[in-house]
Amino acid sequence: MEFSVNQIAQLLNGIVEGDGERKISGLGKIQEALSHQLAFLSNPKYEQFIYTTKAGAVMVRKDFAPENQIETTLIKVEDPYASFTVLLEEYHKAVTYSKSGVEEPCFLGENSTVGDDVYRGAFSYIGKNVTIGKNVKIYPNAYIGSNCKVGDNSIIYAGAKLYEGTIIGNNCTIHSGAVLGSDGFGFAPQQDGTYKAIPQMGHVVLEDNVSIGANTVIDCATFQGDATTIKNGTKLDNLIQIAHNVTIGKNTVIAAQTGISGSTEVGDNCVFAGQVGVVGHIKIANKTTIGAKAGIPKSNKKEGEVLFGEIAFDIKDYMKCYAIFKKLPDINNRLRELEKKS
Amino acid sequence: MEFSVNQIAQLLNGIVEGDGERKISGLGKIQEALSHQLAFLSNPKYEQFIYTTKAGAVMVRKDFAPENQIETTLIKVEDPYASFTVLLEEYHKAVTYSKSGVEEPCFLGENSTVGDDVYRGAFSYIGKNVTIGKNVKIYPNAYIGSNCKVGDNSIIYAGAKLYEGTIIGNNCTIHSGAVLGSDGFGFAPQQDGTYKAIPQMGHVVLEDNVSIGANTVIDCATFQGDATTIKNGTKLDNLIQIAHNVTIGKNTVIAAQTGISGSTEVGDNCVFAGQVGVVGHIKIANKTTIGAKAGIPKSNKKEGEVLFGEIAFDIKDYMKCYAIFKKLPDINNRLRELEKKS
Amino acid sequence: MEFSVNQIAQLLNGIVEGDGERKISGLGKIQEALSHQLAFLSNPKYEQFIYTTKAGAVMVRKDFAPENQIETTLIKVEDPYASFTVLLEEYHKAVTYSKSGVEEPCFLGENSTVGDDVYRGAFSYIGKNVTIGKNVKIYPNAYIGSNCKVGDNSIIYAGAKLYEGTIIGNNCTIHSGAVLGSDGFGFAPQQDGTYKAIPQMGHVVLEDNVSIGANTVIDCATFQGDATTIKNGTKLDNLIQIAHNVTIGKNTVIAAQTGISGSTEVGDNCVFAGQVGVVGHIKIANKTTIGAKAGIPKSNKKEGEVLFGEIAFDIKDYMKCYAIFKKLPDINNRLRELEKKS
Repeated sequence: MEFSVNQIAQLLNGIVEGDGERKISGLGKIQEALSHQLAFLSNPKYEQFIYTTKAGAVMVRKDFAPENQIETTLIKVEDPYASFTVLLEEYHKAVTYSKSGVEEPCFLGENSTVGDDVYRGAFSYIGKNVTIGKNVKIYPNAYIGSNCKVGDNSIIYAGAKLYEGTIIGNNCTIHSGAVLGSDGFGFAPQQDGTYKAIPQMGHVVLEDNVSIGANTVIDCATFQGDATTIKNGTKLDNLIQIAHNVTIGKNTVIAAQTGISGSTEVGDNCVFAGQVGVVGHIKIANKTTIGAKAGIPKSNKKEGEVLFGEIAFDIKDYMKCYAIFKKLPDINNRLRELEKKS
Repeated sequence: MEFSVNQIAQLLNGIVEGDGERKISGLGKIQEALSHQLAFLSNPKYEQFIYTTKAGAVMVRKDFAPENQIETTLIKVEDPYASFTVLLEEYHKAVTYSKSGVEEPCFLGENSTVGDDVYRGAFSYIGKNVTIGKNVKIYPNAYIGSNCKVGDNSIIYAGAKLYEGTIIGNNCTIHSGAVLGSDGFGFAPQQDGTYKAIPQMGHVVLEDNVSIGANTVIDCATFQGDATTIKNGTKLDNLIQIAHNVTIGKNTVIAAQTGISGSTEVGDNCVFAGQVGVVGHIKIANKTTIGAKAGIPKSNKKEGEVLFGEIAFDIKDYMKCYAIFKKLPDINNRLRELEKKS
Repeated sequence: MEFSVNQIAQLLNGIVEGDGERKISGLGKIQEALSHQLAFLSNPKYEQFIYTTKAGAVMVRKDFAPENQIETTLIKVEDPYASFTVLLEEYHKAVTYSKSGVEEPCFLGENSTVGDDVYRGAFSYIGKNVTIGKNVKIYPNAYIGSNCKVGDNSIIYAGAKLYEGTIIGNNCTIHSGAVLGSDGFGFAPQQDGTYKAIPQMGHVVLEDNVSIGANTVIDCATFQGDATTIKNGTKLDNLIQIAHNVTIGKNTVIAAQTGISGSTEVGDNCVFAGQVGVVGHIKIANKTTIGAKAGIPKSNKKEGEVLFGEIAFDIKDYMKCYAIFKKLPDINNRLRELEKKS
C-alpha cells in the first residue's frame, strides 16, 4: 500500500509543508527512517534528527518552527504521537482485513451462511447451521463446529477450534490454537473407584470486543442452555484455562497461564497477572487486581483490592510477611538466644 | 431427535399419566421448560411448579399425588433425578456418536484400516499402518501419525495430534489441540555449552476409558519399545504437561495446568488439583491428594496423604504454618519487645 | 531399513568377528534382542548375556576376549556405548528425514519457493512469499503464514502455526500445536474503562538449532521490524509462554509451563525448571539457574546464580528460610512461653 503525503495529511487533518506528492509506504523512527517512510517528532530530545532524517515525511506539532534547513516534508498536526498511533492502527486494520475470498479446499456445511467480505482459508472447516457475519476472517485449518455463530469483523486465526454451539460476538479475535467449548472437567466418582463422565452439554459465549490468546482453552457449561461467558471487552492472554460455567465480567484483562476453576464469577475491570489460580464457585469483585502466581481461595467483596501470595491476601501485608520470611533463620537464632538467657 | 413420552417412559421403566403421545425433543428445568421439553421433580421445594409448568412431560416419584389440576403429562419413576441423569447420558451419547461417514477431502495412508461407523471429518489425516477401531469419531483437522492404533468408541476431537506409534484404548476421549507423543525434553549438555538432542524413540499408550483435555501434551518415552503410559479410567484436564516415561495409574484425576516431570510414577486413584508441579523420577502413592499449585519434591509412600505448599507437605501442617506466616510482622515485633526487656 | 553387520562395522570403524553378512534392522538390549537386532556390551555385569544372547550382532570393546563359545557376531569398537549412541542418532535421523514429497491436497501460495527433499504433508498451508529451505519437513495441518522463512533441515510438526513473517533458522524443530508470532498482549486502557488493542506488527525470529515444544506460544514483537528472538541452540519445552519482545540467549534450556513476560532478556546458557514465572522488562544474567515454580521479580547481574521461591532469591538461603517456615507453629509457641516468663 502506498499513499501520498497529501493523502495522509488529509486523514490526520494536518497541514503539509514541502512536497506533498511524495509516496509513503511505511512507518519508521525519525533517526532511522528511509525515503518511503513516515516518521514523527514528539519528544524535543529528538529534534536534532529532523535536520538529517531521510524520512519521506515527518509529523510535527502545529507550532514547530525549524531552526535550520529541512529536507523532509512536514505534516503539521495537533499531536504527532497520537497521529502516529492513528496511522499505526489504520495500517494494522488494512493489513488484518485485507484478506477475503475463499481458498480451496475448504469446508462449508449445510445450512450455513457466510456474510460479505469473509475470508475462508484453505482447510478451514465450518459445520452445519453456522452463521458467519460480515468481514469475518477465518484462517487456514480453523474449525468451527455446527450451530456456531460468529459476529461481524471477528478473526479466527489458524487452527483455532470452536466446538459445536459456540457463540462469538462482533470484533472478537481468537488466536491460533485456542479451543472454545471443550468438555468441562466433570466426572462423578463411582463406588468402585472409577469415574463416570458427567455430560457437558452447554456452550461458550463471547460477547463483543473479546480477545482470546493462543492455545487458551475455555470449557463449555455443563447444562444445555447454560454458557461459560466472557463479557464485552475482556482480553485473555495465551495458555489460559477457563473452566466450565465460569463468567468473566466486562473489560477484564487476564495474563498468560492463569487458570479459573469451574463456576467462578470474575467481576468487571479486573486485572490478573500471569500464572494466577482461582478456585471454583467463588466471586471476584469488580476492579480486583491479582499479582502473578497468586492462589485465590475465596470470594472477595471489596472493589479495588490487590491480592498476592500462594493463598492470597492483601499485597502490602503479604510483602511485609515475606520480608520477615526471608529473615526466618535470623529470627530462629534470636529466639534461641533469648531462650538461653531466660 | 424426537421421542414420544411413551417411548421415554419405556426406557425408564416408568408409568405414564396423561398424554403419552406428546413429542419430546429436549430437556429443561421444571420452572422454565417448554412444551417440547421434559423436566423432572425431585426436590419438594419445586413442587409448586408442577401445577404451572409448560413442560411437555415431567418425571415424578412413583408415590407423587398431585393436590391440584395438572396440565402436563407425568412419567412416574423410582428416582426422577437418576432418570434425568440417564436421559442426559443417553442424549449425550446419541449426539456424540451420531456422526459417521467421511467428509472429503480427508487423508488415509497405505495399509490403514478403519472400523464400522467411523466418522472421519474433512482435513483429518491418518498415516500409514494405522488401525482405527469401530465407532471411532475423528474430527476435522485431527492428525493421526503412522503406526497408531485407536480403540473402539474413542473420540479424537478437532485438531488433536497423535505422533507416530501412539496407542489409544477403547472409549477414550482426546480433546481439541491435545498432543500425544511429542519428543521428550531430553538434551545432553556438550563441553562447548551447546546441547545435543537425545533421540526420543518411544511412544505413548493410553489404556481404556482415558480422557485427555484440550491442549494437554503427553511426551513419548525415550527408548524404542518404552511408553509414557496413562492407565485405565484416568482423566486429565486441559493444558497439562506429562513428560517422557511418566506412568499415571488407574482412575486418577488431574486438574488443569498441572505438570508431571520425566519418569515419575503416579499411583492409582489420586486426585491432583490445578497448577501442581511434580519433579521427575519419583513415585506418588495410590490415593494421594495434592492441593492446587503444590510443588511435589519427593516420593511419598503412605496412601491417602493430602499434600500442599510450594515444597509440599501435609496440608493441615501447612495451613498451621501459613497461619503464622501471616502474623510474621507481629512475631518480629514481639521478639523485639522481648529483646529490649532482656 | 536393513544393513549388514559389515556395513555397520564400517560406519563405526569396528572389526567384525563372525558372520558379517547377517542383516540387522533394529537395536535391542543384549538380554532381550532378537536375531535381526544389534545390541552392545559395555557394563561387565551384563557379560554373562554375551554367551546366550539371540542378538544378530553385539558391539564389544576392542580388548574383549570371550571365555566361552559365542553364537552371535561381534563388532569390536573403542567404546560400545558411544557406538550405540551414534547408531541411535543415525537411525533417528534416518526415520525423521525419511519423508519427502507432497501429499495432496496441500496449499502453496504465490511466489513461495520450496527447497529439495522437502516434505509437505496433506492439509499443510504455506502462504505467499514464503521461502522453505532444503530438507525441511512440514507435517500435515501445519500453517506457515505469508512472508515466513524456514531454514534447511528444520521440522514443522503437525498443526504447528507460524504467523506471517516468522523467521526460522536451520536445524530447528517446532513441535505440534506450537504457535509462533501471535499478537503480543498489549492493550491500552481507555478513560471509559475499555481497552484498545495496540497493534502488534513485529515478528518472531528463531536462530539455528532451536527446539520449540508442543503447544508452546511465542508472541510477536510490537513494532514493525522488531522481533521476539530465540537465539542459537536454545531449547524450549512444552506449553511455555514467551511474551512480545522477549530475547532468549544462546544454549538456554527452559522446562515446561514456564512463562516469560514482555521485553525481558534472558541470557545465554541459563537453565529454567518448569512453571517458572519471570516478570517483564528485566535482564537475567548468563548461566542463571532457576528452580521450579520460582517467581523472578527483578534483574540479576551475577552469572551462575541459582534462584528459587515465590519471590525468588538464592536457593540455599530460601531452603534455610523454608525449613524454619515449617516450624512456625513451634516458634510461635516458644515465643509465647518466653512472653509468659518475661
